[in-house]
Amino acid sequence: MTYNYHYDLATSQRKVILKLFFKWKGSLWKAIYQDLFIWCFLYALVSVIYRYAWDRSQQDTFERFMQFCNRRLDYIPINFMLGFFVTTVINRWMTQFANLGMIDNIALFTSMYLSGNDERGRILRRSIVRFCVMSQTMVFRDIHIGVRKRFPSLETMVAAGIMTSADLKKYNEVESRYAKYWLGFNWSFNLLNEARREGRIESSYTQNAIAEEIRTFRSGLSLIWTYDWVPLPLMYPQLVFLAVHCYYLVCLVSRQFVINSDAKMTTEIDLGVPFMTIIEFIFYMGWLKVAMDLLNPFGEDEDDFDCNFLIDRNLTVAMGIVDDTHDDGPILEKDMFWN
Amino acid sequence: MTYNYHYDLATSQRKVILKLFFKWKGSLWKAIYQDLFIWCFLYALVSVIYRYAWDRSQQDTFERFMQFCNRRLDYIPINFMLGFFVTTVINRWMTQFANLGMIDNIALFTSMYLSGNDERGRILRRSIVRFCVMSQTMVFRDIHIGVRKRFPSLETMVAAGIMTSADLKKYNEVESRYAKYWLGFNWSFNLLNEARREGRIESSYTQNAIAEEIRTFRSGLSLIWTYDWVPLPLMYPQLVFLAVHCYYLVCLVSRQFVINSDAKMTTEIDLGVPFMTIIEFIFYMGWLKVAMDLLNPFGEDEDDFDCNFLIDRNLTVAMGIVDDTHDDGPILEKDMFWN
Amino acid sequence: MTYNYHYDLATSQRKVILKLFFKWKGSLWKAIYQDLFIWCFLYALVSVIYRYAWDRSQQDTFERFMQFCNRRLDYIPINFMLGFFVTTVINRWMTQFANLGMIDNIALFTSMYLSGNDERGRILRRSIVRFCVMSQTMVFRDIHIGVRKRFPSLETMVAAGIMTSADLKKYNEVESRYAKYWLGFNWSFNLLNEARREGRIESSYTQNAIAEEIRTFRSGLSLIWTYDWVPLPLMYPQLVFLAVHCYYLVCLVSRQFVINSDAKMTTEIDLGVPFMTIIEFIFYMGWLKVAMDLLNPFGEDEDDFDCNFLIDRNLTVAMGIVDDTHDDGPILEKDMFWN
Amino acid sequence: MTYNYHYDLATSQRKVILKLFFKWKGSLWKAIYQDLFIWCFLYALVSVIYRYAWDRSQQDTFERFMQFCNRRLDYIPINFMLGFFVTTVINRWMTQFANLGMIDNIALFTSMYLSGNDERGRILRRSIVRFCVMSQTMVFRDIHIGVRKRFPSLETMVAAGIMTSADLKKYNEVESRYAKYWLGFNWSFNLLNEARREGRIESSYTQNAIAEEIRTFRSGLSLIWTYDWVPLPLMYPQLVFLAVHCYYLVCLVSRQFVINSDAKMTTEIDLGVPFMTIIEFIFYMGWLKVAMDLLNPFGEDEDDFDCNFLIDRNLTVAMGIVDDTHDDGPILEKDMFWN
Amino acid sequence: MTYNYHYDLATSQRKVILKLFFKWKGSLWKAIYQDLFIWCFLYALVSVIYRYAWDRSQQDTFERFMQFCNRRLDYIPINFMLGFFVTTVINRWMTQFANLGMIDNIALFTSMYLSGNDERGRILRRSIVRFCVMSQTMVFRDIHIGVRKRFPSLETMVAAGIMTSADLKKYNEVESRYAKYWLGFNWSFNLLNEARREGRIESSYTQNAIAEEIRTFRSGLSLIWTYDWVPLPLMYPQLVFLAVHCYYLVCLVSRQFVINSDAKMTTEIDLGVPFMTIIEFIFYMGWLKVAMDLLNPFGEDEDDFDCNFLIDRNLTVAMGIVDDTHDDGPILEKDMFWN
Repeated sequence: MTYNYHYDLATSQRKVILKLFFKWKGSLWKAIYQDLFIWCFLYALVSVIYRYAWDRSQQDTFERFMQFCNRRLDYIPINFMLGFFVTTVINRWMTQFANLGMIDNIALFTSMYLSGNDERGRILRRSIVRFCVMSQTMVFRDIHIGVRKRFPSLETMVAAGIMTSADLKKYNEVESRYAKYWLGFNWSFNLLNEARREGRIESSYTQNAIAEEIRTFRSGLSLIWTYDWVPLPLMYPQLVFLAVHCYYLVCLVSRQFVINSDAKMTTEIDLGVPFMTIIEFIFYMGWLKVAMDLLNPFGEDEDDFDCNFLIDRNLTVAMGIVDDTHDDGPILEKDMFWN
Repeated sequence: MTYNYHYDLATSQRKVILKLFFKWKGSLWKAIYQDLFIWCFLYALVSVIYRYAWDRSQQDTFERFMQFCNRRLDYIPINFMLGFFVTTVINRWMTQFANLGMIDNIALFTSMYLSGNDERGRILRRSIVRFCVMSQTMVFRDIHIGVRKRFPSLETMVAAGIMTSADLKKYNEVESRYAKYWLGFNWSFNLLNEARREGRIESSYTQNAIAEEIRTFRSGLSLIWTYDWVPLPLMYPQLVFLAVHCYYLVCLVSRQFVINSDAKMTTEIDLGVPFMTIIEFIFYMGWLKVAMDLLNPFGEDEDDFDCNFLIDRNLTVAMGIVDDTHDDGPILEKDMFWN
Repeated sequence: MTYNYHYDLATSQRKVILKLFFKWKGSLWKAIYQDLFIWCFLYALVSVIYRYAWDRSQQDTFERFMQFCNRRLDYIPINFMLGFFVTTVINRWMTQFANLGMIDNIALFTSMYLSGNDERGRILRRSIVRFCVMSQTMVFRDIHIGVRKRFPSLETMVAAGIMTSADLKKYNEVESRYAKYWLGFNWSFNLLNEARREGRIESSYTQNAIAEEIRTFRSGLSLIWTYDWVPLPLMYPQLVFLAVHCYYLVCLVSRQFVINSDAKMTTEIDLGVPFMTIIEFIFYMGWLKVAMDLLNPFGEDEDDFDCNFLIDRNLTVAMGIVDDTHDDGPILEKDMFWN
Repeated sequence: MTYNYHYDLATSQRKVILKLFFKWKGSLWKAIYQDLFIWCFLYALVSVIYRYAWDRSQQDTFERFMQFCNRRLDYIPINFMLGFFVTTVINRWMTQFANLGMIDNIALFTSMYLSGNDERGRILRRSIVRFCVMSQTMVFRDIHIGVRKRFPSLETMVAAGIMTSADLKKYNEVESRYAKYWLGFNWSFNLLNEARREGRIESSYTQNAIAEEIRTFRSGLSLIWTYDWVPLPLMYPQLVFLAVHCYYLVCLVSRQFVINSDAKMTTEIDLGVPFMTIIEFIFYMGWLKVAMDLLNPFGEDEDDFDCNFLIDRNLTVAMGIVDDTHDDGPILEKDMFWN
Repeated sequence: MTYNYHYDLATSQRKVILKLFFKWKGSLWKAIYQDLFIWCFLYALVSVIYRYAWDRSQQDTFERFMQFCNRRLDYIPINFMLGFFVTTVINRWMTQFANLGMIDNIALFTSMYLSGNDERGRILRRSIVRFCVMSQTMVFRDIHIGVRKRFPSLETMVAAGIMTSADLKKYNEVESRYAKYWLGFNWSFNLLNEARREGRIESSYTQNAIAEEIRTFRSGLSLIWTYDWVPLPLMYPQLVFLAVHCYYLVCLVSRQFVINSDAKMTTEIDLGVPFMTIIEFIFYMGWLKVAMDLLNPFGEDEDDFDCNFLIDRNLTVAMGIVDDTHDDGPILEKDMFWN
């Protein structure tokens, strides 16, 4: 997970900016320092060759080449491309993020409408929510590196308590050419039917109230999966990545300091270090990193969604709702404003 | 809360602009005056050193450095970055704001469908809506500085009448590794079940109508909490904040007035005060402050959401709806258009 | 209401443009002519002083100051700011506009599900929809200047037939620290309960169908009210308004015609009238006016929402649906395509 | 309807571009050719006067005026304005387009839940969907030129089979100061009630399922009508139209070729035909035409919504669903994958 | 389907960029290489003519023409147009993509609410979902080239098992001037009615729960079909395509290297190969290709939606849910966290 800077932002603002600048984890600095070092090294290399390895006429040719490049740098439209691309990517990211799937609503409705504090009632409720988390974990395993690493096989899901070994056996019996994410939801729906038949669910209306929550949860996961199935066309990120890298490749030449004062194009002052270009580099490369980070939020970057946390949380909270606190509340008292 | 300027805007518009310019609370001026003073002071410092501390050759070097910086200022793309960033931040802000949670719908449906004007009926209705406000307060405590300050502990919530001491006891009995925001909603759902069993709610259909309102309320709070859990990647605001501050750091040098008329780059006129740059400073720094303000609307800035007001309002209005005016309306008369 | 130009746009397009240019009501010209006159007057003033009041050396200083300003005019980023700001404001405007509240759905469902053509049935249906319009009017009274002027007190609402005097009495009996917009909806819900008890509503399911329409209507009004409660942070419009006005203040100087041909910066031709700057003024000031207009659509400008019309329409149409045409349709005939 | 180029785009892309360029119907060329001819004619006129009618000193003044205008052309911000304006207009267009109203859902639910293949059952189902199409036609008559022309009076709707003469008689009996779009829906709802009373609709639940589809259909039409009621403020399109036309008015002068080689500003080469300006003209004027086209999609342009087609289609398809294929499907066979 | 680069993006990012650059399938390179070759060839042609075929005075004229064009290249606003156009196109693409239609929800609800493991029950459930896939296939046949090629006639759909021959016979019996996409849904609804009458569906409430899923599925397909029916006005893509191609046509001349050092406009250095223009070409042409790709995602490009896959998947998964795993789940065990 990214560093959560919201609490910093809540108070005095000038200090915050300074504080934000010196964060390392999930920061701009961490994202770009390697690229920056490589670029600076190459710049120095070009600089040394130009200054010391070449004679005056070679330098002259190089200087005219520099000027040629520098005047045409604005042919590469990184400004616009990055602006529009990042906006598009953020919209996708927001949609994915809003559909990660919190189990709470399913658990609350199951707890309310599927009654019975005996073992059968408890096991029904626990299984319904557990099957939903199981399906969620399966989807995450296929799109999220971290979850995949944690659950390299279905057996590890059994070990983690997300499946029972009976579940796994049944799961493996079902044959399908396609991913079986739907199986957990089908099992949950079967249990709703059983509970209804046993009279634990009062009416088909309340049964459907639970089913609708499961449907919403499933549709969200389905959306996330389809976003993974159909990414933005490869050439769009390719285009943007290429633009930024070409730009800085050309800058290696075009932003050199001219050392001969009789050159056609002279630099105002020979600083050696192209600090304005470095600042520029930080911004555009940083902007690109933002885009790359958000393009696949199911990786292992620090800003990526913490799906393992979500799975654990869903399982624990769901069990808390449907079992531990089922049909159990405080003794009702008159509140303070009673009259 | 911000100054509400809507009423000003409703009437004659030229006066309004003038009036808006001279607001202080929540204004542009208040947001940037400190930054502006610091920048002006630093500018003056550089100016004094350049004019009085250095000899002609040092000045010449400095002038060439100035020119170098000034010509490259447009390397820093604050214009585009701020435009796109502010748009993104405003979209988040609007979503959060639309999900703060008004209790009205829950209260209205509870009042309609949970009948009985005896003490039990009243206490049931009051408790259902109170538990919702309780959960809302708990979410706000974790993300909103002002609510946190008002309710540093759960005991203070008891003192404020949002919980009873029985609630608190029960709340503390429930153990969970994760935040227990859901507990209040679980209790509300339990009470719905009890009311249904007691026949105070006519059918499972009307029970669910109330439950759906509570679900919508809860999902909104859940969204707000997740927005707090997963902020925009740190590096995006970092990038934008850094861009604006770098820009003005470079401006300290590049926007000095050249005093030697034989310098390569001369300024048209030596005004001493860089008023155009100051105007520019106001706009870009102001735009940045808008972004920072909206980035975490749960702080204590004047423009931040007034969650304490919302909690009080929700509690009062909910009690008014479910109890004071329950099952009580005006005597029906023929209206004026009766025929 | 604004001039509705849709019908013009439907036909031949070249004429339309010309026609659109010469509209006055709600037009660009009306919005900016005063600002334009003031600016032109100030420009002329500066021009006269520069040309006739000052001697050559003062003129020279002024000319260098002009040049200084003109070259730095692009420091003020009105182009970008206006583009992004207007987009944000239009989105808010569209959302408000989509939630103004048409009563039709409530009326149609009430008419269908609350049966009985006796006096009691009619009064129940009429009261339910009337209470909704009453609450709508109360919300509009607090945010819309025109509605406020029309209904300065609740008594005027009685006089207009939106409340009865019994309603007003009951309304005043209810005490609350907060706005009582919800009261009308509570009364409507009570009537639904009564009608259900009297058997006029067949089932709790159909009762809820009506209740859901009222909920949707109420939520829309709630959203509008919250948009009014939490405006965009003051400093954002302040920033944009300031940018445009600063820009044109600087233009008063920087866009003067240079009269001395030996000045450093000369103007190509001395036209006296800065017509290109005037054209520019029209566009940017006009764009700003669009933003101001849309920022609070509940004022009295020609483009603002005509809420008084909406209230009247809602009341009349609702009565027409629930009473005049209740349970009354044409005799069914075989249609033309029957076979 | 516009030319549908989707099928062209599906295959080899280079040919497609060429093919797209040479379309005439609904094309760029058709949209701008008149404007372009007028502009070219005026340009030639100015050109002839400048070259042949004036003496050297008049030419000199004109040349300085040209230079004056040309350097200030970028004062007119058409680029930004068009970009943001077109985006806003497209969003409105998409919303309108998504709410035009397909009858299918209403028809499918009516067919499923309103049983009975006797004459009474058929006439009930046919009338319910016909009343919805009737209301749709009435809304379209008021906002769409083509539908208005096809149905200049309600009698023509009777002739087209959308109303019966009994409907028209009843319709005219209802008096209202406001548009009676709601009447058809009220009649449909009445018929649902009758069908329920006659036992043709099984429960109030299925009755409401049909009613909800009608509600959705009606709300879409209501939205379209309100979009027509409240257009974008007149001054926004005025602003954009004016900007583009001013720009090209100034270009008539500023883009002339300088013929005197001793002029301060010389043109590199005297081509006579300002082909780069003509290309520019095509793009900006074309972009403006896109905006104008989309601003009112209910006109008679080739790209406007074909509402007459939609009405016919809705009527035919609805009758097909509720009557011709009611309660009639293929004999069920085991499918190919049965095991 | 496009190359799915999400998994690359999940790990170390620098390598990824390099890897992404060298992809061919669905890549930028594949999209533009032909256009690039053509452009380079034409550029070389112009270059050869200019350098070798013309004498000095012809060269001079050409050089002035070059200069004329080059200075006016920014008249063609491809930057802005592409940015806004691509954003609009991506929004359409996202909406279409979100409505392609996954059968899962329909299948899950059918399996839960339509009980009976006898042949009749199985055939009912299988037919309901199969009819939905059938209608989906019919819609896709009309808008998707790949599906059309796979199913050139309805008989091929019978052969593929999507229809039975009885279905086809019935389908052909129904006459309609308009597309009969709705027929499959009508059949599904009829089967729901039959199942309800046979008591296999418990109540009209659960019947409607299935019907609502089918409705949602159908509305999505309807939206996709209407997007195909009403494309963006032809002139908008025409405009953008034309702008990019005009720009590069002018570049053929304007970006030539000047060979005569005494020309008015000289190039800094004569490289022969206009590599900066080639880089520019790659970006703008690539951006255009992104737009063209997304404009009709139902073609056969590598990035287009793989509708054939979706149809197969829907059919297989639906059968798996409603039949193979109907009413069949694992034996419930106490999970690991049971206490």
